[in-house]
Amino acid sequence: MDIIKIKTVKKEELIDITEKISKLVNLDEGICFVYIRHATAAIFINENEDGFKEDFLYFLSKLIPENNWKHNLIDDNATSHLKANLLSHSIFIPIKDKKLMLGTWQKIFLAEFDGPRERELVLSFI
Amino acid sequence: MDIIKIKTVKKEELIDITEKISKLVNLDEGICFVYIRHATAAIFINENEDGFKEDFLYFLSKLIPENNWKHNLIDDNATSHLKANLLSHSIFIPIKDKKLMLGTWQKIFLAEFDGPRERELVLSFI
Amino acid sequence: MDIIKIKTVKKEELIDITEKISKLVNLDEGICFVYIRHATAAIFINENEDGFKEDFLYFLSKLIPENNWKHNLIDDNATSHLKANLLSHSIFIPIKDKKLMLGTWQKIFLAEFDGPRERELVLSFI
Repeated sequence: MDIIKIKTVKKEELIDITEKISKLVNLDEGICFVYIRHATAAIFINENEDGFKEDFLYFLSKLIPENNWKHNLIDDNATSHLKANLLSHSIFIPIKDKKLMLGTWQKIFLAEFDGPRERELVLSFI
Repeated sequence: MDIIKIKTVKKEELIDITEKISKLVNLDEGICFVYIRHATAAIFINENEDGFKEDFLYFLSKLIPENNWKHNLIDDNATSHLKANLLSHSIFIPIKDKKLMLGTWQKIFLAEFDGPRERELVLSFI
Repeated sequence: MDIIKIKTVKKEELIDITEKISKLVNLDEGICFVYIRHATAAIFINENEDGFKEDFLYFLSKLIPENNWKHNLIDDNATSHLKANLLSHSIFIPIKDKKLMLGTWQKIFLAEFDGPRERELVLSFI
């Protein structure tokens, strides 16, 4: 079990962590499990293309605008929780020949919705 | 493999099941897998704060209103299926020192979208 | 580890792959893992009912319309990436007595958002 710490620099950003994860693969065949220990960030798999990344953050900002959310009476990050809830806290990728079996266009992303912060990921192999 | 049964009491509600799951953790290190055997309920991880819970159910009710959905010609729960489909039927949490490695603000929720019902979860450890 | 190839025939469709997966279950008890190696397709679990399938594709088409997305400057499939990102690339189902422990109404679907194509799934058992 490895702990990976990632410092985000913006309020919202999508950070490609594929290389960081790939380097830690240490078995021939199995499954790579990545878990993020936060409620206002998420991880997902998609293409690393600047247009797509802007599109996705724009889409979420329109879908979940800064309204009068009740959680904002407690803390100032209601939209961060709501956005993270549409993604997931964990991903799994099969491993073969010591490599992640990602598809041609698949990259692993950390989605920051309440940064900048230091985020903690747990990496484990099955 | 454990089966957990949970009785929901409302049409829609978010029930914190963290303690129920935590008590059943029986290995030192590994991964906890929780699966829900239903198509109109889901499980997810987020903060247990009343405002957030209301916000999320309100957000889904606006996103997926009671319209003329085709599934309602067969059964009266089209929005329940659609809402569950934006979340997941399974979650995974790493375990260390016999404890779930949840982040400070992470709690495990059952999301009921077509209650009240008895819901069945499968719990397994890897 | 098995590779399953599925040819889709439409631009968008939801294909029930439950039987294909069930036939390959080869252990008494455990967890079935299915992974899709694509960024414009996804897998999910829900009811196989024609009305629901139409409702879900209609819902996504309204939620993510063909707008001036930036990714379309590079490739003509921005909405395919965005739709896939609201679902997942992987599912897990517990296995007991050599059978998937799916709930009564749960079926496994491949969601095609940029077809027709040949899609590749990785199947593994834990």
